[in-house]
Amino acid sequence: MKRQPRRGNSGKSNRSVPSEDQIIEKLRRVGSLRDRAAGLRLGIGDDAALFSPRAGFETVLTCDWFLEGTHFLRDKHPADAIGWKCLARVVSDVAAMGGTPRCFLLSLAVPATYTGRWLDDFLSGLRRAQNRLGCVLAGGDTTKSNRILIQVTVIGEVLSGKAVLRSGTRPGDAIFVSGRLGEAELGLRLLQSQKRIDPVDSHLRKHLYPEPRLHLGSWLAANKLATAMMDLSDGLSTDLARLCAASRVGASIEAARLPLPTRAGKRVSLSELALHGGDDYELLFTVSPKKLRRIPQHLGSLPLTRIGTITASQAVRIVDAASRQRSLKRNGWDPFRQR
Amino acid sequence: MKRQPRRGNSGKSNRSVPSEDQIIEKLRRVGSLRDRAAGLRLGIGDDAALFSPRAGFETVLTCDWFLEGTHFLRDKHPADAIGWKCLARVVSDVAAMGGTPRCFLLSLAVPATYTGRWLDDFLSGLRRAQNRLGCVLAGGDTTKSNRILIQVTVIGEVLSGKAVLRSGTRPGDAIFVSGRLGEAELGLRLLQSQKRIDPVDSHLRKHLYPEPRLHLGSWLAANKLATAMMDLSDGLSTDLARLCAASRVGASIEAARLPLPTRAGKRVSLSELALHGGDDYELLFTVSPKKLRRIPQHLGSLPLTRIGTITASQAVRIVDAASRQRSLKRNGWDPFRQR
Repeated sequence: MKRQPRRGNSGKSNRSVPSEDQIIEKLRRVGSLRDRAAGLRLGIGDDAALFSPRAGFETVLTCDWFLEGTHFLRDKHPADAIGWKCLARVVSDVAAMGGTPRCFLLSLAVPATYTGRWLDDFLSGLRRAQNRLGCVLAGGDTTKSNRILIQVTVIGEVLSGKAVLRSGTRPGDAIFVSGRLGEAELGLRLLQSQKRIDPVDSHLRKHLYPEPRLHLGSWLAANKLATAMMDLSDGLSTDLARLCAASRVGASIEAARLPLPTRAGKRVSLSELALHGGDDYELLFTVSPKKLRRIPQHLGSLPLTRIGTITASQAVRIVDAASRQRSLKRNGWDPFRQR
Repeated sequence: MKRQPRRGNSGKSNRSVPSEDQIIEKLRRVGSLRDRAAGLRLGIGDDAALFSPRAGFETVLTCDWFLEGTHFLRDKHPADAIGWKCLARVVSDVAAMGGTPRCFLLSLAVPATYTGRWLDDFLSGLRRAQNRLGCVLAGGDTTKSNRILIQVTVIGEVLSGKAVLRSGTRPGDAIFVSGRLGEAELGLRLLQSQKRIDPVDSHLRKHLYPEPRLHLGSWLAANKLATAMMDLSDGLSTDLARLCAASRVGASIEAARLPLPTRAGKRVSLSELALHGGDDYELLFTVSPKKLRRIPQHLGSLPLTRIGTITASQAVRIVDAASRQRSLKRNGWDPFRQR
């Protein structure tokens, strides 16, 4: 239990373990000269951070857990990948609104023995993600824990009235996804089965260092091309059901159209991975028929694939190559239903 | 490890345990009609929340861990007190900037068996704090964990340029605290020693249901009466050292002026509790000599006590009743230095 006054403890015990303030000082160095450009007037070191929102924008607020044993494994996932991914996956939620990330808060709890090399590598990955995604560290909280606990909150912006919600799609709209589905799940399986990490394997990279689709999200929002949008974090079967529930519609997916991983998996069906695998952080979005011709096959190098159509039935169905229909069960990630 | 597609799992297993979406539905009911008044345009249920900041205000961003075993004990702390306190302690950081809370994000990880009665009681305390503090639930993240993990991020506002930082005090400024110091620590000791909770004990209430000093903080900020301010969460000896470090000054505290708990503790010095006890969530602030007469002895029923003076020496000293000076060691809460 905390908060016991310790008489006789001069603060000199555990000399090799940094104090909370020394760890905060390490975090402060992650911040950069770009703080002010991001609208941050005051960053790490006070009771709170101060952020100046721009006129004409709404603020986007989102957060995610990233927990050892649930979302990553201490002995399998490199610390710098944990640093990258804990930020990238939250920024993906901002992309899914059509917004732009501005700054983030990091809540970190680690064992005392993880405040040296591990923390440095973690912060190195976090700094790379910060610079790549244009989202700077504004503050947070640190404490000690036996298990590595990470929580990230991202503050972003979206032009007022331009955010793309889950609730706006209508029967007849086309359903699109970006990129390929199931690659991150395949990457996770590679990680679990391999002794050494192959740094150039693209599926492994997609699992370890996902790239939020910020450009696609803001392009769709600014041009009012998407009627609904969300990011794919828990698997298509689960996330599409959520989008349909929010819009009170159904969907019909064509199995043959699913953009599968390019690499074959061992003892696993690629279409099962594409339907239920999590962690891809691609965007799922819907487009009304009259705007269909404005959606290209690629945006830059990112493929955009039509995988089906929104229906009025409120059920999610999948049609196979032989035109047989079946109900698509939600079989993606649910932490409370894991066996 | 998560994110394993589970073929053959129709989602019907663990029927008695709610799904993540059912838990989110419980959380959604915590929100209220006041959402829009708080500037929330979109709350729980999409990829992110949307918040409309007011013109002329800066956004205040702050967050805190609240972890079982570190910040509370599952078998000692009532669930509704955990719900109240996890929000109140973060709102206290907004008070310390002179700001007003607007909305918050809740990240919650609980054992599957804690998604019933415990969760309902927790949300009941959280809802009371939300309504009392004018800070509505905007979103968050839920997952499963063996240990109860809570992280709260609060988004507040402060009039542009009026935030009170830790860094603004100068030698000669008077040092004030609100309320009484050490009461929450005494309350914790009562909780640990008693079999039953006495709901009317004021020290226990201060430990379980702290009241952030929002009115005092915004009054000092709006009237530009405080040169520096922070909240007392880790104990005066630790937090005053932080304020002094941020302002590059020192301090001299008069032991006889410390506002001690009104109730005697067993086998414990009240002045030790006042100097090093954490969790009081009172405000520590400094006032320049020319504005001293504008600080009343009470603001409403809240006592404001001058406890010392800022010095140029960069050391924090305490003077006892016999005018003997000694260095005041930082002996408050540091999670990385606990024995």
